[in-house]
Amino acid sequence: MSFVTATYLVPGGLDLHKKAEGIALGLTVGSWTDLPALEQAQLKKHKGEVIATNDGTPKATITIRYPAVNFTPDIPAILTTIFGKLSLDGEIKLVDIAFDDALAKQFPGPQFGVDGIRELIGVHDRPLVMSIFKGMIGKGLDEFETQLDAQARGGVDLVKDDEILFDNPLTPFEERVKRGKHILDKVEQETGRRVLYAVNLSGRTFELRDKARKAVKLGASALLFNVFAYGLDTLQALAEDPEINVPIMAHPAVSGALTASPDYGIANSVLLGKLLRIAGADLVLFPSPYGSVALPKEETDAIALALTEPTVHRAAYPVPSAGIHPGLVPHLVRDFGEISVINAGGGIHGHPDGSAAGATAFRQAVDAVLDDTSLEDAALQKAELAAAIKLWGHPL
Amino acid sequence: MSFVTATYLVPGGLDLHKKAEGIALGLTVGSWTDLPALEQAQLKKHKGEVIATNDGTPKATITIRYPAVNFTPDIPAILTTIFGKLSLDGEIKLVDIAFDDALAKQFPGPQFGVDGIRELIGVHDRPLVMSIFKGMIGKGLDEFETQLDAQARGGVDLVKDDEILFDNPLTPFEERVKRGKHILDKVEQETGRRVLYAVNLSGRTFELRDKARKAVKLGASALLFNVFAYGLDTLQALAEDPEINVPIMAHPAVSGALTASPDYGIANSVLLGKLLRIAGADLVLFPSPYGSVALPKEETDAIALALTEPTVHRAAYPVPSAGIHPGLVPHLVRDFGEISVINAGGGIHGHPDGSAAGATAFRQAVDAVLDDTSLEDAALQKAELAAAIKLWGHPL
Repeated sequence: MSFVTATYLVPGGLDLHKKAEGIALGLTVGSWTDLPALEQAQLKKHKGEVIATNDGTPKATITIRYPAVNFTPDIPAILTTIFGKLSLDGEIKLVDIAFDDALAKQFPGPQFGVDGIRELIGVHDRPLVMSIFKGMIGKGLDEFETQLDAQARGGVDLVKDDEILFDNPLTPFEERVKRGKHILDKVEQETGRRVLYAVNLSGRTFELRDKARKAVKLGASALLFNVFAYGLDTLQALAEDPEINVPIMAHPAVSGALTASPDYGIANSVLLGKLLRIAGADLVLFPSPYGSVALPKEETDAIALALTEPTVHRAAYPVPSAGIHPGLVPHLVRDFGEISVINAGGGIHGHPDGSAAGATAFRQAVDAVLDDTSLEDAALQKAELAAAIKLWGHPL
Repeated sequence: MSFVTATYLVPGGLDLHKKAEGIALGLTVGSWTDLPALEQAQLKKHKGEVIATNDGTPKATITIRYPAVNFTPDIPAILTTIFGKLSLDGEIKLVDIAFDDALAKQFPGPQFGVDGIRELIGVHDRPLVMSIFKGMIGKGLDEFETQLDAQARGGVDLVKDDEILFDNPLTPFEERVKRGKHILDKVEQETGRRVLYAVNLSGRTFELRDKARKAVKLGASALLFNVFAYGLDTLQALAEDPEINVPIMAHPAVSGALTASPDYGIANSVLLGKLLRIAGADLVLFPSPYGSVALPKEETDAIALALTEPTVHRAAYPVPSAGIHPGLVPHLVRDFGEISVINAGGGIHGHPDGSAAGATAFRQAVDAVLDDTSLEDAALQKAELAAAIKLWGHPL
């Protein structure tokens, strides 16, 4: 028998066991104690079970196990079972889920994951550095090429589209893919470094698979996907497709609508962690604890753990993001270790000497941290890092 | 020029105009005042505009207009623009959206809507009555047929699957469709009443369209869809498909994760109201203000208004649900009028004389209310209604 186990945060001081029993029955067989013995025997394998209740103040938790025989092995059926009507039933937050291995194996997990991406890029011993195009709305392909070239030459490992850049006549999707490939091939020939460009896969759901296949044929090296504007199952379908054989980067756009409340919705570690990994995200962006848009450190730790702890699936790359500058690199490496991608937009393009220098400053900061050199000491030798620290500081 | 206008609820007492400007620029052109005049001229039509700010305590609102030229006319691109990274940016709730008519017309809206469903069912002058299968998990096709027959003969206009009933070997999807059609055809021959059965369309996203087309070919008369376990754009694709020419009923499963917090997420009137209507839901289920799972009356009023107010799209049926029994019918009709569907599960199957009597009691309650007869008076003549009121009461 396979199961999904779900843990919920609810207000303390309720009749917790009664509430838990009500959920376990209401989301499975409906009723139990009034049923004739014959019907109980027939329904036993379908019945939800209360696994644990932990009362507390102000919050309590309830853990319920749902038999997988009740649903098809897809995320929409599982979400509907464990947090469908229940999401509407007063103050309740889904804070943990667990799949047994047999059930988990019915999901793809990351196609590439950490090891596969390291292989693609040829970097195995340090956090990766990623940058984001800046202010591309209303700009054309020249600006696209200039920005991509500068970021790649400056030393980043990955470049991604801004998530709000959609198909548009100024920088059409296929042109971005083709010109991106051309530039990154040239950078590789000249520097030996392979840089990936994640193009924003957008548009209508039922066209995404063909569009992604076409992009891969045209030379796309990675895909950015606003999974929460679509659905986790759509991500899974892209990840499972053998023709879409490039890493998929999940953007957290819209996810805050589900995760931000302490009392309602779904925990970040579940939504951005466990569910994105099971569905097949190779890289997962989320706000770091340090930038302009920030998450509490215990939440980012929990996301990173969910993405990288040993399971039946490959590990996915945690990508702490938003308001990152080189002075934050020691904090990010301390928190997320080598298995992480440091992602910056303004912290690269806002560098006093331009985007290439901004990218270089990040790589210098990463090297310093891995060498156990302080950023101040490294900055004595490295002009780009020195300029970055002068501008943005270096919080201790 | 087309626009989407979005209104956000944020904490009061901030520098509201500065915050609003930051959003309007951050989600469009990125920066403005520092740009050279030439670049400003080039980017003007892409720039977000602050339309209004209303300070207040404890909450303030910000209204921003986003040029449609920045996104493709699909819900994922629009959601990512107006509430993508912004959903992660502290205490903020998306409380209203508006599309101008030119943009709205690029979305299908309901294929049938209120008038189309009235036509299908042949009822034009009263609220419709719907019932839900009860406890089907672990049960077989005999139980399915028995329940459907009883509900339909009892007098309901629509019957729906429970949203947690997925494809399963005991009651396979196609068998439910075929046997459902057979039973409802028979009921129509014998009673002259056309009853619709909404089968739960579930499974993998990219298979849904073919599965729905097949279901329609096999005689499905309506579809139930857990849209928030998938994505609004998937609903839209189903609604737009000419072969899927049956009403689509949107279930609110999982939506509470987005709507329940007063401070974060998306308002019910936006998610269950405006967006479901634009995407093409013909019927929208939501908790009534009165049952076991309840929403505040101002929220259900706002959902119903968003579904039925005059726009470029057909009106969708509001379906107040959850814990409904015949004694609540006067309240529901007072709140939602004739353009509504009264939906019950336990309030039909829990009737002392069985499901058929439970359905009959609802129809009697509706008739009484439309006749301006009190339920007490009607119950003197109607045994089924009398038994229901004796059991569940009749709140004044």
